[in-house]
Amino acid sequence: MATVISPVSPQAFAEFQGLLGDGRVITDAEGLRAFRDPFQFHTWEDNTASAVLSPTTVEEIQEIVRIANRFGVPLWTHGQGRNNGYGGPAPRVTGSVIVSLRQMNRVLEINGDLAYAVVEPGVRWFDLYEAVQASGHKLMLSIADLGWGSVVGNTLDHGVTYAPYGVDMGMQCGMEVVLADGSVMRTGMGAMPGNRSWHLYKRGLGPTPDQLFMQSNFGIVTKMGVWLMPMPETYMPLWLRVWDDDDLAPMFEVLRALMLDGTIRMVPQVMNTVLYGAVVAKRADFWTAEGPIPVDVLDRMARQLDIGRWLMRFALYEDEAVADLKFAKIKRAFESAIPRAEVWGTKYSADEIPGIENPAEKIQGGVPNLDWNNMTAWYGGGEGGHIGFSPVAPLTGPDALALRDLLRGMVQGAGLDYIAGLLPINARSFIHITMVIFDTKDEAQTRAAYDVSRRLVVEAAKLGYGEYRAHLDFMDLAAEQYSFGDHAYRRFCETIKDALDPNGILSPGKQGIWPRSMRS
Amino acid sequence: MATVISPVSPQAFAEFQGLLGDGRVITDAEGLRAFRDPFQFHTWEDNTASAVLSPTTVEEIQEIVRIANRFGVPLWTHGQGRNNGYGGPAPRVTGSVIVSLRQMNRVLEINGDLAYAVVEPGVRWFDLYEAVQASGHKLMLSIADLGWGSVVGNTLDHGVTYAPYGVDMGMQCGMEVVLADGSVMRTGMGAMPGNRSWHLYKRGLGPTPDQLFMQSNFGIVTKMGVWLMPMPETYMPLWLRVWDDDDLAPMFEVLRALMLDGTIRMVPQVMNTVLYGAVVAKRADFWTAEGPIPVDVLDRMARQLDIGRWLMRFALYEDEAVADLKFAKIKRAFESAIPRAEVWGTKYSADEIPGIENPAEKIQGGVPNLDWNNMTAWYGGGEGGHIGFSPVAPLTGPDALALRDLLRGMVQGAGLDYIAGLLPINARSFIHITMVIFDTKDEAQTRAAYDVSRRLVVEAAKLGYGEYRAHLDFMDLAAEQYSFGDHAYRRFCETIKDALDPNGILSPGKQGIWPRSMRS
Repeated sequence: MATVISPVSPQAFAEFQGLLGDGRVITDAEGLRAFRDPFQFHTWEDNTASAVLSPTTVEEIQEIVRIANRFGVPLWTHGQGRNNGYGGPAPRVTGSVIVSLRQMNRVLEINGDLAYAVVEPGVRWFDLYEAVQASGHKLMLSIADLGWGSVVGNTLDHGVTYAPYGVDMGMQCGMEVVLADGSVMRTGMGAMPGNRSWHLYKRGLGPTPDQLFMQSNFGIVTKMGVWLMPMPETYMPLWLRVWDDDDLAPMFEVLRALMLDGTIRMVPQVMNTVLYGAVVAKRADFWTAEGPIPVDVLDRMARQLDIGRWLMRFALYEDEAVADLKFAKIKRAFESAIPRAEVWGTKYSADEIPGIENPAEKIQGGVPNLDWNNMTAWYGGGEGGHIGFSPVAPLTGPDALALRDLLRGMVQGAGLDYIAGLLPINARSFIHITMVIFDTKDEAQTRAAYDVSRRLVVEAAKLGYGEYRAHLDFMDLAAEQYSFGDHAYRRFCETIKDALDPNGILSPGKQGIWPRSMRS
Repeated sequence: MATVISPVSPQAFAEFQGLLGDGRVITDAEGLRAFRDPFQFHTWEDNTASAVLSPTTVEEIQEIVRIANRFGVPLWTHGQGRNNGYGGPAPRVTGSVIVSLRQMNRVLEINGDLAYAVVEPGVRWFDLYEAVQASGHKLMLSIADLGWGSVVGNTLDHGVTYAPYGVDMGMQCGMEVVLADGSVMRTGMGAMPGNRSWHLYKRGLGPTPDQLFMQSNFGIVTKMGVWLMPMPETYMPLWLRVWDDDDLAPMFEVLRALMLDGTIRMVPQVMNTVLYGAVVAKRADFWTAEGPIPVDVLDRMARQLDIGRWLMRFALYEDEAVADLKFAKIKRAFESAIPRAEVWGTKYSADEIPGIENPAEKIQGGVPNLDWNNMTAWYGGGEGGHIGFSPVAPLTGPDALALRDLLRGMVQGAGLDYIAGLLPINARSFIHITMVIFDTKDEAQTRAAYDVSRRLVVEAAKLGYGEYRAHLDFMDLAAEQYSFGDHAYRRFCETIKDALDPNGILSPGKQGIWPRSMRS
């Protein structure tokens, strides 16, 4: 693959500057540093951009695309560029021109009766939350762990959110997209001018293209509908704590039953001792020697921090009487199946939610914050990074243990701590987020983290587990594993790519999809 | 558009016969009659096929596609071909060769722990229900109104089902598709050989193509995952009856609140007097004069049949204690908002469901039947037909009345009864199924039904309502309304069509998508 391009022509830069003015075109080295992969070792020079453009209108994006076509300039788009752990704002192809949509950050509509918003791609969870609060409508947003991310960007990367609409990422409805030829398409009912159901019905007449613009490089999404949930009478964040590492298996068996029957209808997060420990403590308080933390120290951490070997955060969103019934059922189910397991929770009315202090309870209640970001400072003095390695698996006890054993063995074999956040994204499957955390000032440790992450892609695939999302450095390798029918899926994507974007200007290499001119 | 092709070459027929044998190639006039639009007036000769092929394996489908490419034969695929009201098994282009998948009818897998099945495209609701019962697993299927339809076919046409997984048609997970070049692709996690989550996680790595194969002509789906719901402790079918035609407005306002907050989590069906009357009675019992039934007769029908002016069927699927709470809340909400409204229901345990007799209660409980089919015999002596005209609208009182007024006015203006089934497909939108029912032996009435259906497409679009699905005869006109951005969506579909299927062999004209060679 052509992962480095020859320099962009000065004429193209001149045209971009003519369109946007100097203020919205960054080309100086210092300015460009802010758009690197934030966790890449500081002397590495992969995935650097040659410029950053900041359009503010759909028309400017159309014109950027036209200029890029004329000069063969590869573009790389982000909403906020906060998918740290997968590459952040950095482009796959060194020398690409970044199209940063951070300044397209208007909340275009909030409909209280029909419970949805329409946002531009630069709108962050913080921004949408504030706009909903300001509107006075009693609506709850399903948000990601970190409030600085883009609502659209997270959705387009298949990112997870946690409230009920986060299940199978169901909250997107209706898009506007600038295609590679500069035309503007609206999806679903939005394809009909003046249609009243663009952000209400998930489809249109004919095939539904929305998901084709997620984890791909077929267009630039400029507007998106987001469903908001009416504030429940009772929001009840819950916790489940278990003390034996193997309790994960019965925990998942019980959880599946409670999700399949609709008792739990949101996305839990199941954290091992080190993951939640990294949010609330520092590694140096427990272990300063070489290599991963030994099991007896983990047990001590679990006790001292009172977080167990696995801690699950989850929540109910119900009328109070239903919440009471469900809580009793959930508590009984877990505590009868797992020795020493404990389930507890707190009921909040809608008015009490903004005052909640625990970061996890805030996240599940739709209140954006950045507290979860602490965890990357696990090693070293606040300069931490991580790679997300994130395979999908059936929501069963045996699968949970099999994946844990594989990942723990390999990560610890690389001298790193096994840091796991398991996300049951629906009643049948979970995403195993492996936070491969390292000190970004330690080149050997950074290298070790990259090396083991690369090997994990292949080893997990051998057991039947594939990544739901891949880091820039492993996108090709991850995509390579999806090889059924002599790579029928990749050829399908390439066929569409070449047809929609014959010059290959939109985000070449994204998720392993390369335009014809760059395929080897 | 080229809606009639020149005769298929004898050489192509010979190759099809060589592949399938005589028994699975129909070319005689009598045999072909069974594959016409069942409601087309009997002397009309539109949309007739030149042959019907019945493959039984994926490999045979691949070979059919290769032969079709060599000879330029347009194919038209169905699972069961039961989307009566939209054209049934008939092809858009006269002279096409039908690929009937009725003989690919194996239930390939039923997984009791993870609650899903994998089916071939010829599997009917009846077949899957029987297979689930035979498996002994306590699982409920979300089914369509008529049990003879194909599970895959209904899904690919965006067809509605009614249990919780019917909301936004959420029960499909993972596909296998034969593409126009004869290759076999698996979607989502299935693109990885041996992956364990193909039918558990709705996406894969990279863009999700599944919805691209619905209401389109980009491939032939050969396998599909179907999520099954564990049997609830209590299945409680409910009824809401109101007596004033305008009660529809407050009914929808209350319903939206109860769906948005998760109290009702399935797809209700809201029927006007004539629709439910057509299921349980004959028109001649009430009205034999010319023209539509007058309003005083409708009021008499409503009283005599005890069905109200609007009757809503819906249901709860819950633990019994939760069902009791929800029922009380629902009853209070509707009865306090609407004078004379009544809500009632019956609780069934899982074991009691197979013994339920009311057809609507069977449908919502996942027990397939054909009782609903009675309604097309409304006119005449059992030889009835209908066209489905089915726009989508916001789930609000004002939108419900605006659509009702438009459709009632135009349908009655054509001398026909206004027969309405409104399906709130999610908490924010509903599909207004207008059953334009006519006597298929009465050419003038049939013609009137077609004419008014055509005009409805345009008039509804002017008010911002677009069809979710279109009859063969109106596909182009319906697609024409989705013209935003100088038909950007249509060009997008055509670009993909031409790239994936350069010879235009797969279902040309389906939902208004034509291959390059047939575009005018």
